[in-house]
Amino acid sequence: MERVVVEDVRPLVDCARFPAKAALDQPVEVTASVFADGPGLVTAWVRHGTPGAPTDGHGEVAMRHLGQDKWAGRFTPPATGPWQFEVVGLYDHYGTWVRDLRMRIDAGQDVVVEIEDGARIVEQHLSATRTSAAARKSLQRLLTTLRGKSSAEVKLEAAELPSTRELLRETADRSRATVIGPFPLFVDRPLATFSAWYEMFPRSEGATATRSGTLCTAARRLGDIAAMGFDVVYLPPIHPIGASHRKGANNSLDCGPADPGSPWAIGSPAGGHTAVHPDLGTVADFDAFVAEARRLGLEVALDYALQCSPDHPWVSEHPEWFRHRADGSIRYAENPPKRYQDIYPLNFDTQDIEALYAACRDILLFWIGHGVRVFRVDNPHTKPLPFWERLIGELRAAHPEIIVLAEAFTRPAVMRYLAKAGFTQSYTYFTWRNWKAEVSEYLYELSQTPMVDYFRPNFWVNTPDILHEMLQKGGPPAFRMRAALAAIACPSWGMYSGYELYERTPLREGSEEYLDSEKYQYRPRDWSQPDSLAPFITELNGIRRRHREAISLLRTLRLHHIDSDALICVSRASDDGGDVLLMVLNLDPTAAHEATTWLDMDALGIADDRPFTVHDELTGADYTWQGPLNYVRLDPEVQPAHVFSVRQP
Amino acid sequence: MERVVVEDVRPLVDCARFPAKAALDQPVEVTASVFADGPGLVTAWVRHGTPGAPTDGHGEVAMRHLGQDKWAGRFTPPATGPWQFEVVGLYDHYGTWVRDLRMRIDAGQDVVVEIEDGARIVEQHLSATRTSAAARKSLQRLLTTLRGKSSAEVKLEAAELPSTRELLRETADRSRATVIGPFPLFVDRPLATFSAWYEMFPRSEGATATRSGTLCTAARRLGDIAAMGFDVVYLPPIHPIGASHRKGANNSLDCGPADPGSPWAIGSPAGGHTAVHPDLGTVADFDAFVAEARRLGLEVALDYALQCSPDHPWVSEHPEWFRHRADGSIRYAENPPKRYQDIYPLNFDTQDIEALYAACRDILLFWIGHGVRVFRVDNPHTKPLPFWERLIGELRAAHPEIIVLAEAFTRPAVMRYLAKAGFTQSYTYFTWRNWKAEVSEYLYELSQTPMVDYFRPNFWVNTPDILHEMLQKGGPPAFRMRAALAAIACPSWGMYSGYELYERTPLREGSEEYLDSEKYQYRPRDWSQPDSLAPFITELNGIRRRHREAISLLRTLRLHHIDSDALICVSRASDDGGDVLLMVLNLDPTAAHEATTWLDMDALGIADDRPFTVHDELTGADYTWQGPLNYVRLDPEVQPAHVFSVRQP
Repeated sequence: MERVVVEDVRPLVDCARFPAKAALDQPVEVTASVFADGPGLVTAWVRHGTPGAPTDGHGEVAMRHLGQDKWAGRFTPPATGPWQFEVVGLYDHYGTWVRDLRMRIDAGQDVVVEIEDGARIVEQHLSATRTSAAARKSLQRLLTTLRGKSSAEVKLEAAELPSTRELLRETADRSRATVIGPFPLFVDRPLATFSAWYEMFPRSEGATATRSGTLCTAARRLGDIAAMGFDVVYLPPIHPIGASHRKGANNSLDCGPADPGSPWAIGSPAGGHTAVHPDLGTVADFDAFVAEARRLGLEVALDYALQCSPDHPWVSEHPEWFRHRADGSIRYAENPPKRYQDIYPLNFDTQDIEALYAACRDILLFWIGHGVRVFRVDNPHTKPLPFWERLIGELRAAHPEIIVLAEAFTRPAVMRYLAKAGFTQSYTYFTWRNWKAEVSEYLYELSQTPMVDYFRPNFWVNTPDILHEMLQKGGPPAFRMRAALAAIACPSWGMYSGYELYERTPLREGSEEYLDSEKYQYRPRDWSQPDSLAPFITELNGIRRRHREAISLLRTLRLHHIDSDALICVSRASDDGGDVLLMVLNLDPTAAHEATTWLDMDALGIADDRPFTVHDELTGADYTWQGPLNYVRLDPEVQPAHVFSVRQP
Repeated sequence: MERVVVEDVRPLVDCARFPAKAALDQPVEVTASVFADGPGLVTAWVRHGTPGAPTDGHGEVAMRHLGQDKWAGRFTPPATGPWQFEVVGLYDHYGTWVRDLRMRIDAGQDVVVEIEDGARIVEQHLSATRTSAAARKSLQRLLTTLRGKSSAEVKLEAAELPSTRELLRETADRSRATVIGPFPLFVDRPLATFSAWYEMFPRSEGATATRSGTLCTAARRLGDIAAMGFDVVYLPPIHPIGASHRKGANNSLDCGPADPGSPWAIGSPAGGHTAVHPDLGTVADFDAFVAEARRLGLEVALDYALQCSPDHPWVSEHPEWFRHRADGSIRYAENPPKRYQDIYPLNFDTQDIEALYAACRDILLFWIGHGVRVFRVDNPHTKPLPFWERLIGELRAAHPEIIVLAEAFTRPAVMRYLAKAGFTQSYTYFTWRNWKAEVSEYLYELSQTPMVDYFRPNFWVNTPDILHEMLQKGGPPAFRMRAALAAIACPSWGMYSGYELYERTPLREGSEEYLDSEKYQYRPRDWSQPDSLAPFITELNGIRRRHREAISLLRTLRLHHIDSDALICVSRASDDGGDVLLMVLNLDPTAAHEATTWLDMDALGIADDRPFTVHDELTGADYTWQGPLNYVRLDPEVQPAHVFSVRQP
């Protein structure tokens, strides 16, 4: 009978229905409850390897007992793609014997018989098949000691030696071990867990109010973006735009001849999802854009918006891929009673689903062929959820390096499901989490609940659709504060261009839409404005890169108490605790606030009783603190946050 | 493509590794997240039935949407034994169409085409195979209306009728439904979820200090026990007791000739686990005892202690069932450095495990053959955990009515595992949870976490091994308080005899053992003492029986805020909310306390704005309360608690 129980394993997503997320540069921390009947000891370890391969002999790491039958072990997967692990528990006969012998001897009991009991355990190890010749020699020496003339205390000391314990662990009979698993992982490349995104409409770069910029002129902006420290430059759709029902400036139904239309109304006689808008240039220009980005250390992310303008080639070539109304017309997009007549959704209930699926997949393969490895998916929650699991699964099998960001702003269950089904990163509710309680709760949910095993948040401070009231009314202090919160609290963050110029005029009071939105018109900008936020953004991305290990790991995020409703105190730490950042942020852009921190010293890895240094990465100032209680004051006109690196001398 | 996702199903124990617990008299509440892409509506239902049988056509109950994609449905299983359920989700084309049509008409849009879209949905239902002739007729009528001359509003009203919605739900094409499951349940009889236990040593009833009582004399006590309202009378082992290393009074190693020994040192030349101690009588006397109990509405629970005295017949007949030390002697029980030389544990690592297993099982079958259906298992956590899963599983297959109580006081993970592995009820940490924070946390954990799906607590106020300091020092007010807390807060509770006489002298200061413990000597008692707690116990058990539905259901337990650290406020409610109890209890036996309640009115099902009556079931007094804030005062010398039934006129 296998006496050891292994249960409550993590990371585990929906009973292993989906793989948990891992990354090349991050240790996977496996935890489990491992125990047996009675007071005997157990040992546990993690085996990991590629799916399908026999896992014995693969990577194997010992687990350590955290107390209350909880064990933990960690390993770093060596390759991208599918990976798996198992947890193994084994009754520790030898360890139990040693522990009990110590108690017997300390109680002054006669242990002659008990020492012989131990010698017989060692004999069993000697005869086990997995015992090497070298181990056999060491075991034989131990046996000689146990049966020799020395005192019980001397024998016990030999039995207790860490090297002896290790030897006996290694040679233990594993035939009655309890194995649970395998549990699936998917291993992403490092960009998945650490990325700063910059969104730009290439048509605005080098544009006038009436003339489109090109991929060529837009490429000249890449240097600035790289210099600010971004990792990804994301382009809204670059495809031909339909003319039917085209929207004019400010989403008007009246469209003038010079209005360029929304890039999301994809498709015209010039082509569909695999074409480049003639105003922007050619596919060759796109290749050049990608090459220039790569030269600067940037990756290009394309938008993947599965919808068509009425002028998209698919509409005539594949009318069966669209829904038809009772009068034979194609059903345009609606959110009743709202109508979006410039957009036709695809019909995933079509009889021709296999052909439609292949066409959707081939769009991605086309752009992968042009060097794109990062996609931002538009509204994935309005397409069938199983479609994404199939599509991402198929693509990742050939291209494990692709990164797919889900732009879903919808109910929590749907957002979580998209992440489980395969999306590498996800947009979040961050934009609407502004005050202490809601920010704290959200950071806790993302970092301290099982979501952390599959949902990778990407905190966007703004998007072309979302200009939050906090920015509209809070002005430059709010822009600094929100950028610091996103960049330091989250492994991935994003910014839509214009943010660095504090663009904040809404379409109308109460709206989150921009006035003169770039979605419907060119927005040439003067990047040389002297009060630009670009230097501050550069600072933030610089801190991120200097503290990459701490920033990229979400599960070690901790919230610390601070006695002000306007201030929030968050720490980030690398897996080994060697790098710790502590941010104190003023969430109120209108007033200075002061408060006392009540730090969780264990989370910081700092002793209570000795001074430690906090070095402000934003200002270069050093402070000497001691214990949990420390004074801070933050004036939003001066500095939204302290971003301290924490060091104990 | 199946568009609907069903996930996060409960009750579900360890990814369906174990069945969740259910009972004949309690609705199973199934919850799940059910959703699809986009804003369309879904429907969901639960199918349930016996394992192996096709579940379609079995019990089927609609789920209701609770909000945020969470759905719930409930059913009451019709038979004891294994049962299972599935959750089914389906896209609601018709419901979505009706909802959208309402929005279009309200917005003044032309809907001629949309109404024809709806008519086509109805046509699809007409042609579906599961549509009955009667349903077909109704659908045809609806179709005629939709295509007739009446106004859009009249057509919409016909389409919106609840009976129409129901008809369309019933006739929907289920071929693309999402089915998840089956998920296992085990259905117990009602005693599993509602039981008051009384523990007695039969040898003390009718005994003198030196002469044993018998099952015959003990049976005379059953009337009192039944009159106090208990459901189960539990007997410590009734088997022959070994003479070797027998313990004397107060666990002394010196045993006098008249000392009866511990009933847990099972086995002598007179027999083992299937024999009755000659001093107590015969198996026939036991049968008579069971018959008398049954006549009084009591069930007899036997102790199942898998260990042997050195004189147990198994020791000579099956020496291989015991562990041997290196010197050939049998290993007695130990908890190093403590030694229990009067007890031999069984060796579940024996090569002869199948024979040992069968012998252990046959003990239970023997007593089942003598009318016993309830067992209290001694220290199950010191036997292999898989042993219990096999044993209970095998017995329940033939005897689904057996109830097995785990007497494990050990680490939380092990206690939880025993419950998952099959134990019907479990002893708990209740005895050591005395103050507000610890009582509140424990009640929350037992009722509001996934434990409620498999762990059924039994709150014992005392046992022969546990006389808590609270009772030793708190005296009669503490005895009343702890009995009220156990009996009202928990579906099952237990009391060891002597409690009603306030027996509370410890072996020594700081010990939880009784002085002159009944484990080692006869304890004849005078039950006629005038200040006995028996009338109060009778009251408590009476309240339990009058409010059985509310008391037996743990998942509806709620803790209410009350602004005193000495008072606790707990409500219990039946599944339909028709019966609600509210207990306010003074945890401090030394002083009166007063406070204001801050009731969770939703949990009580009471409106905020109208007075309601609270009727004290202990005193008969009625009070008129209104809203969450109400004054209470409790003097432990007078009354430990209010146990209110709550009614809104």
